[in-house]
Amino acid sequence: MTESGKPILYSYFRSSCSWRVRIALALKGIDYETMPINLIKDGGQQFSKEFQALNPTRQVPALEIDGITISQSLAIIEYLEETRPTPRLLPQDPKKRARVRMISDLIAGGIHPLQNLSVLKQVGQENQLTWAQNAITSGFNSLEQILQSTAGQYCVGDEVSMADLCLVPQVANAERFKVDLTPYPTISRINKTLLALEAFQVSHPCRQPDTPAELRA
Amino acid sequence: MTESGKPILYSYFRSSCSWRVRIALALKGIDYETMPINLIKDGGQQFSKEFQALNPTRQVPALEIDGITISQSLAIIEYLEETRPTPRLLPQDPKKRARVRMISDLIAGGIHPLQNLSVLKQVGQENQLTWAQNAITSGFNSLEQILQSTAGQYCVGDEVSMADLCLVPQVANAERFKVDLTPYPTISRINKTLLALEAFQVSHPCRQPDTPAELRA
Repeated sequence: MTESGKPILYSYFRSSCSWRVRIALALKGIDYETMPINLIKDGGQQFSKEFQALNPTRQVPALEIDGITISQSLAIIEYLEETRPTPRLLPQDPKKRARVRMISDLIAGGIHPLQNLSVLKQVGQENQLTWAQNAITSGFNSLEQILQSTAGQYCVGDEVSMADLCLVPQVANAERFKVDLTPYPTISRINKTLLALEAFQVSHPCRQPDTPAELRA
Repeated sequence: MTESGKPILYSYFRSSCSWRVRIALALKGIDYETMPINLIKDGGQQFSKEFQALNPTRQVPALEIDGITISQSLAIIEYLEETRPTPRLLPQDPKKRARVRMISDLIAGGIHPLQNLSVLKQVGQENQLTWAQNAITSGFNSLEQILQSTAGQYCVGDEVSMADLCLVPQVANAERFKVDLTPYPTISRINKTLLALEAFQVSHPCRQPDTPAELRA
């Protein structure tokens, strides 16, 4: 934490996992400081000795809060939910909570890891786009079908939940990798509704302290 | 659920995500029936129309319980924890819970998806072993360092937790892909301790209803 006791978020403007946490912090009104970790510059600042000591996974996001450092975006969000429960990001009903976690895990564990920067590096530049598109469309085929039975205004019913925090950054990645979103009307509709909310806007990659000038909006 | 009201676990003996859930069910003493889904046979039974209707992600495990079907292993375990809290698989203290979830997500979202069957198929047969080994060693390098600060007898302190349910199947995968475990003394020690527990034995891939005779133990 900073001297003033504010949590510190180690974040990269374009990291979709960091964006998930930034949305949670914004929705819950938690004041924090951003410590940018540039995943490209200097061969990747996440590999510095200082950062590795803080977060052995060498990934963003990591959140220093309440005297501990937590990595993994969903673990961070669950911690925030347990210690700062208002407004809630998980419904009260266990069955609905299961749906929220199922969708969150599908995106965070089933889609995103396969199109993450570190994996795309291994795939080789000429195969990256196809690889990422396959990972996303395969996941979105499942997700669209699931959402058709769980969604209201948002991913699960009419309350913004952790699942929505995963959806919006994943759709942004899909757009970045030029995935045709026409077959996913439910995903597209929910994404558009969410992007109109202030918490999703202030946390957006184009509005972070480390966003390069040419990408700012 | 079955007519007698028992939960049904859609599972494949070798699936490490299914194993995680089988351990949870065993630890909590929940009686269930196994419905084997062979991920290889008939081009993959997970792609059948019947299974896709039940679980659009076309993956195991899926658990039919309390009138709903849940997919994604960690979402299932969290649901079991919320509805059948004894014995607990998440500590009471929120900071310890964060550590458990951080380790679980690192394995379930950061290591396992990259060495999963569906990804290895895309990598091509000649590259599979190296690809899987890289994914596992990179993750284990982080995990070993994290465990050195969180572990007691088990991954987080001296209580078996969700993190342990992720660890054991991941180590089994590492062994299957011939990863040298010498650099990971903490991972190896905890794995050995856990494998001595009955819940980890009855749930083991070599003891499932769909385990082929030649692999049974």
